Amino acid sequence: MDEKKLTTQTENFSEWYNQLVLRSEMADYAPVRGCMVVRPYGWALWENIQKAFDERFKATGHVNAAFPLLIPQSFMTKEKEHVEGFAPELAVVTYGGGELLEEPLVVRPTSETIIGTMYSKWIHSYRDLPVLINQWGNVVRWEMRTKLFLRTLEFYWQEGHTAHATAEEAQEETIKILNIYADFARNEAAIPVVAGQKSESEKFAGAKVTYSIEAMMGDTKALQSGTSHNLGQNFAKAFDIKFLDENNQLQYCYTTSWGVSTRIIGAIIMTHGDDQGLVLPPHLAPIQMVIVPIFRKEEEKQAVMEAVNAVVKGLPNVRIKVDDRQGVTPGFKFNDWEMKGVPLRIEIGPKDVQNGTLALARRDIPGRDGKSFQPMQGFETYIPEMLETIQANMLAKATKFRDDHIFDVDNFEDFKDVVENKGWAKVWWSDDAENEAKIKEITKATLRCYAESEGEGICFYSGRKTDKKVYFARAY
Amino acid sequence: MDEKKLTTQTENFSEWYNQLVLRSEMADYAPVRGCMVVRPYGWALWENIQKAFDERFKATGHVNAAFPLLIPQSFMTKEKEHVEGFAPELAVVTYGGGELLEEPLVVRPTSETIIGTMYSKWIHSYRDLPVLINQWGNVVRWEMRTKLFLRTLEFYWQEGHTAHATAEEAQEETIKILNIYADFARNEAAIPVVAGQKSESEKFAGAKVTYSIEAMMGDTKALQSGTSHNLGQNFAKAFDIKFLDENNQLQYCYTTSWGVSTRIIGAIIMTHGDDQGLVLPPHLAPIQMVIVPIFRKEEEKQAVMEAVNAVVKGLPNVRIKVDDRQGVTPGFKFNDWEMKGVPLRIEIGPKDVQNGTLALARRDIPGRDGKSFQPMQGFETYIPEMLETIQANMLAKATKFRDDHIFDVDNFEDFKDVVENKGWAKVWWSDDAENEAKIKEITKATLRCYAESEGEGICFYSGRKTDKKVYFARAY
Repeated sequence: MDEKKLTTQTENFSEWYNQLVLRSEMADYAPVRGCMVVRPYGWALWENIQKAFDERFKATGHVNAAFPLLIPQSFMTKEKEHVEGFAPELAVVTYGGGELLEEPLVVRPTSETIIGTMYSKWIHSYRDLPVLINQWGNVVRWEMRTKLFLRTLEFYWQEGHTAHATAEEAQEETIKILNIYADFARNEAAIPVVAGQKSESEKFAGAKVTYSIEAMMGDTKALQSGTSHNLGQNFAKAFDIKFLDENNQLQYCYTTSWGVSTRIIGAIIMTHGDDQGLVLPPHLAPIQMVIVPIFRKEEEKQAVMEAVNAVVKGLPNVRIKVDDRQGVTPGFKFNDWEMKGVPLRIEIGPKDVQNGTLALARRDIPGRDGKSFQPMQGFETYIPEMLETIQANMLAKATKFRDDHIFDVDNFEDFKDVVENKGWAKVWWSDDAENEAKIKEITKATLRCYAESEGEGICFYSGRKTDKKVYFARAY
Repeated sequence: MDEKKLTTQTENFSEWYNQLVLRSEMADYAPVRGCMVVRPYGWALWENIQKAFDERFKATGHVNAAFPLLIPQSFMTKEKEHVEGFAPELAVVTYGGGELLEEPLVVRPTSETIIGTMYSKWIHSYRDLPVLINQWGNVVRWEMRTKLFLRTLEFYWQEGHTAHATAEEAQEETIKILNIYADFARNEAAIPVVAGQKSESEKFAGAKVTYSIEAMMGDTKALQSGTSHNLGQNFAKAFDIKFLDENNQLQYCYTTSWGVSTRIIGAIIMTHGDDQGLVLPPHLAPIQMVIVPIFRKEEEKQAVMEAVNAVVKGLPNVRIKVDDRQGVTPGFKFNDWEMKGVPLRIEIGPKDVQNGTLALARRDIPGRDGKSFQPMQGFETYIPEMLETIQANMLAKATKFRDDHIFDVDNFEDFKDVVENKGWAKVWWSDDAENEAKIKEITKATLRCYAESEGEGICFYSGRKTDKKVYFARAY
């Protein structure tokens, strides 16, 4: 580990993030501009994220499959809005096996087109519906300004693609997934996301309606962390996905698509991280607890290691790392695991063995307040409990931070001050794409999503009456 | 399910395979020539395969990571043999974001070059070694003649890439992985593979030594089902992967790479399948047991479904599917699940409920011999046992088939007869790449791998004395 201190969040949040991702060994820059290498520590986190989502998808009847990486270029043009949205971002294969291809192939930026093509082949009757397929994979979008995990040319994600007999079922699916995303964010990632519908300007290219989960980062900027799209019959019509209904009438399907990507790792880093490094939620942390054995003399070693092994053995369901590296000081190890965001640390030295105690340090509460001595006895119970306490505390802390930085405003002057200096603005809003664009131009803030609202109010910008509230914020 | 009978294995093995892959819904042809869609049933099998490998890799100290899909074209040329091996198979991205790229990017056919580049950045000292990283992902090779699972433009695999301080450690790793591959094949896939070293002509482009596991298919052809390469210092020198040893001397690392792909699904299909369809080994089968409830009248339904639910509840660790589809006959269902290779089937009807029995049918023993009535009582014990019996029987059957089709021969005439009509030839062999090429030209048989041997003998082809035995066979 690099001994130099991290740039602090207040000095430069963006630089703090970049340094932290590299120094915690979550990811590294690849030799191709804008691409990343997800290193083993980052990938272990992603595997835990995948598992938590995959269980939720399977519990709600979804199955996984794999569709091709390469898509004929002509497929991309079949849905009008879709091609406009994605054409500028495509990576195109023009040579294969040394020969110029007759038709260029696009490296998938998303898979609606190729999956739609297969669905039109597989779906014949209402008995074949619903089709509830998810895919874990990689996609490529030719982004100009990139940042590790947040926006890279290639990224990893899951993309669900479902087909239904009715508009109602498709809408139900879209919301079901939005709720799964929000539930994951809150209960696994300890991120108190706001979930809601996107505006027309911000929706997915080709969708009827897009919903998203929006997370507030430590610098108060918003990060869109997952999207669920009701595609209506747009793609079914473009790709001829039809079925015979119970009355033997040919109908177009209603489809949905939805995705969460490795971007969520960026959300976890920027929601919970501090100037010492990552702070990972126990439910997802690759290492939930690190044990640092401390001894000077060889004769102390045996007793210390016996205690260490007893703790490891007593906690078969906790992901534990014993840091028995030689040649580095305990202080170095502490810093290292703090940088890597391990939720709980135990030190065990000869005195602890003698006193029958463990020295604990919680990552979520830095400094002295997070440290305690606990009796060795009963660790099998209180350590898993403490991990849950940390998880809950991280969510509570992030929720307070979020709520402290959302401001109800009713005029443009206050709005500007909020989105430029303080956080998110929650406002009455009369839908107007032109006004939305103007606000973006002036303040760089975008409409993140619709908020829950009751009654009516006056749009802070147009002065028109409306029954809708929305969140505006600067975003990644 | 298509009601038409499969083409039989004896009629046309290749056609039997193609039909079966489609009709069992394991995979489908993608709209791009040579690409496949792995459908949910096939992907569920792949997930079980991945899990079985991943556990073995992690238990031996390996970790997962993700390296980029796109590789600068110049990287491919750094290792001389590597570029010669892969240049004809590359898919090349020349446009990104609408612009012609300064340097074309290759879609990875394998990742030695990009991973080597990162290792040269990460590895500094002997303390950083060994590096034991695996990656699950997709790769693209521009193949001309393709076949679902066996050879497709894009396929899914794991590729391990390790770096070591000494030649001995690298060799140890290479063999450790070969043994993991063979262990998986035998104990999970019930495929009695032969494991051994490849000849110089057949080794991986850039390797010092390649080892493989070779499986015998139902038509007696060989299928290379996994490879483990000792790369020596070839890639370390080409990509400058160096470390300071304990004496502060700069040394090149020794590296390995190894992979198993979705091809192993083809091996499972062609090792165990029969004229009724797939026969999946219980350890990997997505559905280990299907229950078909049988009743005519509504008043029979409740008692039958109670028994069905009791069986499901009593077997929480068995992957069970209850086929309660309306509007299709039990006979149709039986054929369907036979086609899909589910290891065990239970029928439960009103009479079974009355008698307290279950009607069982084993997929590995077609026809009457595989059917039995068992008391309902004790199913929690005997059904898991029966799944293990099926697993063991499949391995025994495949082992007998393999052994019945390997022939020791000592002259070219017999050799030709064996490899063209009977199976694999096991022969004394004096290494000679020219003779190997001649044999391939005349008989289409290739040297699959070295066999274990004792003492010395006379090479069947050159007549020279040798201490080596090898397997020759026609292969996929």
